[in-house]
Amino acid sequence: MSDYTPLNKVGEFGLIRMIKEKITLQQESTIKGIGDDAAVLEPKQKQLVVSSDMLLEGVHFDLTFCPLKHLGYKAVAVNVSDIAAMNATPTQITVNIAVGARFTVEAVEELYEGIKLACDNYKVDLVGGDTTSSNSGLIISITAIGETTSEQVVYRSGAKVNDLVCVTGDLGAAYMGLQILEREKQAFIANPDMQPELDDKQYIVGRQLRPEARMDVIYDLRERGIKPTAMIDISDGLASELFHICSQSKVGAVVYKDNLPADSQMLETAVEFNIDPLTCIMNGGEDYELLFTVPLAAYDELKNHPDITIIGSITEESEGVNLATKSGQVFPLKAQGWSHF
Amino acid sequence: MSDYTPLNKVGEFGLIRMIKEKITLQQESTIKGIGDDAAVLEPKQKQLVVSSDMLLEGVHFDLTFCPLKHLGYKAVAVNVSDIAAMNATPTQITVNIAVGARFTVEAVEELYEGIKLACDNYKVDLVGGDTTSSNSGLIISITAIGETTSEQVVYRSGAKVNDLVCVTGDLGAAYMGLQILEREKQAFIANPDMQPELDDKQYIVGRQLRPEARMDVIYDLRERGIKPTAMIDISDGLASELFHICSQSKVGAVVYKDNLPADSQMLETAVEFNIDPLTCIMNGGEDYELLFTVPLAAYDELKNHPDITIIGSITEESEGVNLATKSGQVFPLKAQGWSHF
Repeated sequence: MSDYTPLNKVGEFGLIRMIKEKITLQQESTIKGIGDDAAVLEPKQKQLVVSSDMLLEGVHFDLTFCPLKHLGYKAVAVNVSDIAAMNATPTQITVNIAVGARFTVEAVEELYEGIKLACDNYKVDLVGGDTTSSNSGLIISITAIGETTSEQVVYRSGAKVNDLVCVTGDLGAAYMGLQILEREKQAFIANPDMQPELDDKQYIVGRQLRPEARMDVIYDLRERGIKPTAMIDISDGLASELFHICSQSKVGAVVYKDNLPADSQMLETAVEFNIDPLTCIMNGGEDYELLFTVPLAAYDELKNHPDITIIGSITEESEGVNLATKSGQVFPLKAQGWSHF
Repeated sequence: MSDYTPLNKVGEFGLIRMIKEKITLQQESTIKGIGDDAAVLEPKQKQLVVSSDMLLEGVHFDLTFCPLKHLGYKAVAVNVSDIAAMNATPTQITVNIAVGARFTVEAVEELYEGIKLACDNYKVDLVGGDTTSSNSGLIISITAIGETTSEQVVYRSGAKVNDLVCVTGDLGAAYMGLQILEREKQAFIANPDMQPELDDKQYIVGRQLRPEARMDVIYDLRERGIKPTAMIDISDGLASELFHICSQSKVGAVVYKDNLPADSQMLETAVEFNIDPLTCIMNGGEDYELLFTVPLAAYDELKNHPDITIIGSITEESEGVNLATKSGQVFPLKAQGWSHF
């Protein structure tokens, strides 16, 4: 341990200085970042969106298999994902962290390297936050701010009957990635000399450890002049998010089982684990893809889009939220969100 | 325990609904509060200030003597205090909480009652946040947003030589209140039948449990047309905050020991505990009063102000940061901030 620096060597102010030195501000709307009682922003005539999330060790992540750099990246990405779901452009974040005494300066630096990488990637400025000690594990609480306009902003409540239901990317992989990591952890506990077998699970493990906010799709839709009528990011699972859109838009929906996008590695691994792949897709969660609705007129533009899949359509509220199979069977869906309690 | 509702009975969405129902939005700039992926704000031509703080059970508060309603109030107040220190008007907050399984729905309601009381008092809208479970204690992470303009905003860096150094209220009481609460806790552990003796300690205990952000002084100074040249809120202690102003403004300062505002209950209790009252005043922290500098011309307006005390003046940087006694002795001050690690 002699190569590592205990946190009390640098103290809170030392830590803040260390973090501040790594930061370059790039948003025009950031007037003042870290270093005063508050950050100062100047959004001009824009509307702002604000979202906040907290990640706790032992609840949302496990440091035995989650590298700190990935964790820092993910903590930013999941907040940017909420900004994306409003059809806004992320601009600033504040980061509060609490770390236990066992943490070293080097560990905090690694965490902030991931945070910085995500900030650079999504072009957000880290403008403030708080570092404190924790009696238990690592805690990260992030608030993300984004810019939009009253014309551009997209709520969950705007879906209309006959709209297309679309998702980005593929679903269920983050959940199966977690199952793999948990299995390898148990194997390691049983036999610490064993090497983890992850070679053919890279994709799904990566989906769990280092998800991306789909800003690429947001920018692409803007370029195509397509504005979603309703949108939400998939953190709790497709079924739960579809229920949010339907209840807030006062509509029903039907999604087609055969249209649901899934990666082959996820499908194989689900079979390996004896888990119904449909359960992973509908209720897995943590994929941080976008679920959105668009007017029927966007069909031609989106039908062959490499990152977007049309999975169904919006129906009258009275018809409920349903899953349809190729053979014509229709099953009412249940919202089965991630229960934290 | 049969009168209490376990949290898993209502779940995360039930809890969010419960919190949302209690909220009334009052800020014109709040377009959308809780209920989507992010809140939506429209600050028009204003500048925004953003500040974020995290409070952890066992580090920042002790639930054995801190009522949940007070804690909720305090969590908001300390964030609003940062907004005040920018000479801004608080407008919105987001609240992330993590609660352990031992928490009941009623306990969360009590916490939110305090949060709501503070929101009403400071006229801020609760617009978002996250509720999750914690493996250890209660965690509250709040981000506060406020409005200001480029003409109105006050940084730590604007103090000029010959400016007056002022503080609001009195100092050191929150620290002595904590000593009292710790003493009574130990007495209770030793003999659970004992009643706490707090009758003659109401003021200092209240200063610890339920501090106020000094928005009253901010509004009063605006009415008088006095704009501070530099400002900071006193969370870590007067000495530490004065060092922040001096280093960022590149000036020195002298404060006069006999001018430092102290409450008689704090002074008596310090003597009782054999603690130097000057240490409480200079390094106690958690009073959440404001430390600010104003041009010398404001002297007549402020000299008899009931909530403001002129404690010294700004000097050349080369003179350092000093404490002067009546007899003319001068002691260089040390920044002795609150070390969390």
